[in-house]
Amino acid sequence: MKFSFKNDYSEGCHPNILQTLLQCNLEQQAGYGEDEYSLKAKELIKEKIKKADSEVYLVSGGTQANLIVISSILKPYQCAISASSGHVLNNETGAIEATGHKILSIETEDGKLRPSDIIPVLESHKNVPHQVMPKLVYISNSTELGTIYQAKELEELSDFCRQNRLYLFMDGARLGHGLTSEISDLTLERVAELTDIFYLGGTKNGALIGEAIVINTISLQEDFAFNIKQKGALLAKGRLLGIQFLELMKDDLYFDLAKHANQQAMKIKNAFRSKGVQFLADTYTNQIFPIVSNELIEVLSESFDFFVWKKVNEDFSAIRLITSWNTGDDAVNSFIEIINREL
Amino acid sequence: MKFSFKNDYSEGCHPNILQTLLQCNLEQQAGYGEDEYSLKAKELIKEKIKKADSEVYLVSGGTQANLIVISSILKPYQCAISASSGHVLNNETGAIEATGHKILSIETEDGKLRPSDIIPVLESHKNVPHQVMPKLVYISNSTELGTIYQAKELEELSDFCRQNRLYLFMDGARLGHGLTSEISDLTLERVAELTDIFYLGGTKNGALIGEAIVINTISLQEDFAFNIKQKGALLAKGRLLGIQFLELMKDDLYFDLAKHANQQAMKIKNAFRSKGVQFLADTYTNQIFPIVSNELIEVLSESFDFFVWKKVNEDFSAIRLITSWNTGDDAVNSFIEIINREL
Amino acid sequence: MKFSFKNDYSEGCHPNILQTLLQCNLEQQAGYGEDEYSLKAKELIKEKIKKADSEVYLVSGGTQANLIVISSILKPYQCAISASSGHVLNNETGAIEATGHKILSIETEDGKLRPSDIIPVLESHKNVPHQVMPKLVYISNSTELGTIYQAKELEELSDFCRQNRLYLFMDGARLGHGLTSEISDLTLERVAELTDIFYLGGTKNGALIGEAIVINTISLQEDFAFNIKQKGALLAKGRLLGIQFLELMKDDLYFDLAKHANQQAMKIKNAFRSKGVQFLADTYTNQIFPIVSNELIEVLSESFDFFVWKKVNEDFSAIRLITSWNTGDDAVNSFIEIINREL
Amino acid sequence: MKFSFKNDYSEGCHPNILQTLLQCNLEQQAGYGEDEYSLKAKELIKEKIKKADSEVYLVSGGTQANLIVISSILKPYQCAISASSGHVLNNETGAIEATGHKILSIETEDGKLRPSDIIPVLESHKNVPHQVMPKLVYISNSTELGTIYQAKELEELSDFCRQNRLYLFMDGARLGHGLTSEISDLTLERVAELTDIFYLGGTKNGALIGEAIVINTISLQEDFAFNIKQKGALLAKGRLLGIQFLELMKDDLYFDLAKHANQQAMKIKNAFRSKGVQFLADTYTNQIFPIVSNELIEVLSESFDFFVWKKVNEDFSAIRLITSWNTGDDAVNSFIEIINREL
Repeated sequence: MKFSFKNDYSEGCHPNILQTLLQCNLEQQAGYGEDEYSLKAKELIKEKIKKADSEVYLVSGGTQANLIVISSILKPYQCAISASSGHVLNNETGAIEATGHKILSIETEDGKLRPSDIIPVLESHKNVPHQVMPKLVYISNSTELGTIYQAKELEELSDFCRQNRLYLFMDGARLGHGLTSEISDLTLERVAELTDIFYLGGTKNGALIGEAIVINTISLQEDFAFNIKQKGALLAKGRLLGIQFLELMKDDLYFDLAKHANQQAMKIKNAFRSKGVQFLADTYTNQIFPIVSNELIEVLSESFDFFVWKKVNEDFSAIRLITSWNTGDDAVNSFIEIINREL
Repeated sequence: MKFSFKNDYSEGCHPNILQTLLQCNLEQQAGYGEDEYSLKAKELIKEKIKKADSEVYLVSGGTQANLIVISSILKPYQCAISASSGHVLNNETGAIEATGHKILSIETEDGKLRPSDIIPVLESHKNVPHQVMPKLVYISNSTELGTIYQAKELEELSDFCRQNRLYLFMDGARLGHGLTSEISDLTLERVAELTDIFYLGGTKNGALIGEAIVINTISLQEDFAFNIKQKGALLAKGRLLGIQFLELMKDDLYFDLAKHANQQAMKIKNAFRSKGVQFLADTYTNQIFPIVSNELIEVLSESFDFFVWKKVNEDFSAIRLITSWNTGDDAVNSFIEIINREL
Repeated sequence: MKFSFKNDYSEGCHPNILQTLLQCNLEQQAGYGEDEYSLKAKELIKEKIKKADSEVYLVSGGTQANLIVISSILKPYQCAISASSGHVLNNETGAIEATGHKILSIETEDGKLRPSDIIPVLESHKNVPHQVMPKLVYISNSTELGTIYQAKELEELSDFCRQNRLYLFMDGARLGHGLTSEISDLTLERVAELTDIFYLGGTKNGALIGEAIVINTISLQEDFAFNIKQKGALLAKGRLLGIQFLELMKDDLYFDLAKHANQQAMKIKNAFRSKGVQFLADTYTNQIFPIVSNELIEVLSESFDFFVWKKVNEDFSAIRLITSWNTGDDAVNSFIEIINREL
Repeated sequence: MKFSFKNDYSEGCHPNILQTLLQCNLEQQAGYGEDEYSLKAKELIKEKIKKADSEVYLVSGGTQANLIVISSILKPYQCAISASSGHVLNNETGAIEATGHKILSIETEDGKLRPSDIIPVLESHKNVPHQVMPKLVYISNSTELGTIYQAKELEELSDFCRQNRLYLFMDGARLGHGLTSEISDLTLERVAELTDIFYLGGTKNGALIGEAIVINTISLQEDFAFNIKQKGALLAKGRLLGIQFLELMKDDLYFDLAKHANQQAMKIKNAFRSKGVQFLADTYTNQIFPIVSNELIEVLSESFDFFVWKKVNEDFSAIRLITSWNTGDDAVNSFIEIINREL
């Protein structure tokens, strides 16, 4: 079978997680997230972000987290704002709209939002009450294009949102990768200070399942658990989620796994770079988008699985390569060998 | 720590499931339910029900299954019908209504619906277009009260639904327990023939997570996967669900586990019975509702956890005892000892 | 053609309304409720209730008013409480559920809710977060059964709601009839003090169209207009609604029309009563429910249209008779003649 | 007071409508659209479109019509497609999304959609089941920019939709203006043949209230009335809507009124044109968008109300002028005088 660089959820989970699942398997635990593993995991997360008054909820996946968070915050006539590449816009089968809310799309080159992107949207939505009211800014870090927010960028965006009474929500499906990028100066603690709500993605970073929603703004915490239950996201055996995050949070395993994925991607990136290959976006996380010839795509496809992302011209296309917490040196090296051989 | 008879999801999962999770953990598999474990599990289920043209989808939990199924079937102005004890009515935080649909409640003694219960509801909903249109009958087997449908009862209900152009949907969160009850003459195959759609519950019968939705009626199958994704129920690592059902379906493990749970409950039931204790409902599955004195409740509570279900009078209450696939003889015997000693 | 006692919306509107529509027809007015007629009508209503800080919005009909009000107030996991006879429960095609909210139904004899009716519902909805959270009490005055709330009853209910953090919403589709009932001691001013939100029904009391929603609680006023627009209820030619209420509010026409309807109904009621006829409910508004023989129903049906409401036994049924602002003495007298002749 | 060219709903309604409202005011009529005026109006519309098997429903306004139609047709995971200028996208406070459905926006210069605009959207929405499924094409005629569809354009679009199993829905808020444009070769009959569903706008063409939804595709007709009731759009006094369309349909009044509005706009357009003024779009209906200097705007604003639509540069902006069924020669002539004097 070919090795796959298609995504970061092809493998199971970090062995520590399975180990703990095994160890506690026959214990009787309270249901619906009241088990001791979930409670400990939540405490650990709050310690890491140094915000004792944040609240943490564990859910199964990213679309679920997004739809619960956004529908819990917005009133019926309010809407979200997202970069046009946002996962909520293109990859969730209208999950947000199905809860009744529009998402306004903003075209940006790099998948990131800046105050200057948002201002015109606010300006063009002032025809009360004939238009939806923008109320929540959705960003992802790392973004769907592999790019990241630097501390200063997030600070400016956060300030802007507070001045304009907009909530700031960070989709952290790949937050580990964003924060451990070699160029990132942002910390988890700072993310918690600058956003109203965000989540730590587990599924794409070594968990079998699970995203940890962190609510920093007190007024958004009220009755949040009801939303989780109503949307079908409250697992009876909550220990399954608790154990994922308990293990990932121990000794910074979460960040180690993400850093590993980033490093493997950077090795491949550098191999391409040294051959003068261009990229669709200049990324420093576990997603890279090299623009290569159709011939090279064909050769690489003999040994590897990956997505051809975007046709650039008749002869060249950008491909997407994603590495994971478990991408080994063998795969990376043999991929690089082909690059070196063919280019 | 006290042994708990509070529910059937206190423990983890059957060891075979964890064993397979371990074995395949580092394999790369396709995401979103296209992994080979999910595909095999679905095939196994279709073999068991002997319906090659049914479709199977795996989701995380019961509320999720209920809301996806019901919202996928009903048009905006159509509603579901449920016994007043139905899980969808009382225990899902309005999950169905949140998708836009009313549920009409019918009072029944035993948690079951019969054509004679439904006829008056149809009669009283004919003021077109001022009332919702009843279109789907929701039943559970075993029910929330531990009772079951016999083959003849389900046949009559199924016939009635077809004659009245109503869809029949069976919530099978405890379907294993229903079918392996010592008094049941219903088979899984027959359930698939008589319902339009049903699910096999995993969470309450030895899985860590998961319910397997089976769609028997072809017209309800179209595009079903979109609904799963839209409601945030499509796990990236679908193998997690696939492996649960693959293992449960092998060699009838699913039914063995449920039968075990039932048998443990029946032992306790018989112990109460031999002392002349009455029950809130005459059940033959893994839920029993003995009516006991406050004194006995106090004594039992010293060693066991369980819910006091319903006050019967000043001195007596019904308690709910639930056994699981993993309830051992020790717990059962020591519980029975107390009964024998105290009564 | 037979005279109809089927409802109070069979005729057009009070001539004053058409007169003003004619007079101002070719004037250019601002759209979407910003016309001078709507503005004046709202001011008049606020004067009548003596609450300068209430806000008034005009919409087309009762179902529209109910769904806008309820969906604007409740968070996704919150629900309404209604008497089982409530219009929102049985006669609006699931309009409230279509906005995502459950309505809990309480059986009551007379269509009214008292604190003692609501307490058990609150008690049985404490399994957080597995159940919907009751947050709004929906009542109607006069009720769907023609009964009314007295001042003391409404005060008790209002106090109870405030103590329990429940919003109190009065459907006033027939508020005029309720307040001008010969036995009512409640005033419009008092209604505004005791409810968080209510509406003055126009359609059933001499308007061509229109209900005036009055929001007394400041926190519920924020951005309310957005909800009206989003639900398709904001008429471009808002003058149509404004003129209805401007005319109805002048010189208490609204109350005069309702009182007339009530009086006509009472004449018929007294005619039945003097013959010893029983009623389904003891009403003092424009709806009466006499229990009469099948023979009498047949005779009355030769000259009049009305609904046979409820079969009481093989020989007797309750019929529903509704009078309107325009029910003349001729119709009433000839109906009474038949009663006197036949009984 | 200044004369307003701000919109086509500033005045009341054509006198014939008020006349009939007066004449039948005290008649008793069946409620909820079963009155004889509504029934006759519907028959007249079906005669005009020469489609006896179409169904007609009367509702109050455009947003209401749009949300009822779209939500009645789409399954939860399906979405609509609209030109970016579409009323449903920008001017209805998220009404469509509030019913659970996304609208995909397509940028077009002239507010019209062609197959070539839609193809890329279909191509980029094939990642089943991760994306919404496009299922309905929303167009308006005349468009929000005043442009129109010619017969050939609508035929091509209709063919394309049928080949791609997309429903075609025409928002006809200004259908009269579209069809009576001096350059239009499209007929009402042809619109009914080429669309699955459309509506005839009354509010912007001489009615006090009302849009007539015409459902041409049989499968979309089933149970449609339930949707109208559920969304709060079923008027108790349906005669109000029936009379609007009965009068408008008599002797082609509907088209005469629209033609008048168009002609008045064309007079102004020609006045601008003869002075070499450019337009934002080249329109032939009752909306024109001349690009004029700030100085001229100031002068015109002394005597007339209108919207400044779009800033073109520091010195020039496009203004929007809308004429109505009731725009008289006096206003038009005095406006033209200013043009002639100032340019």
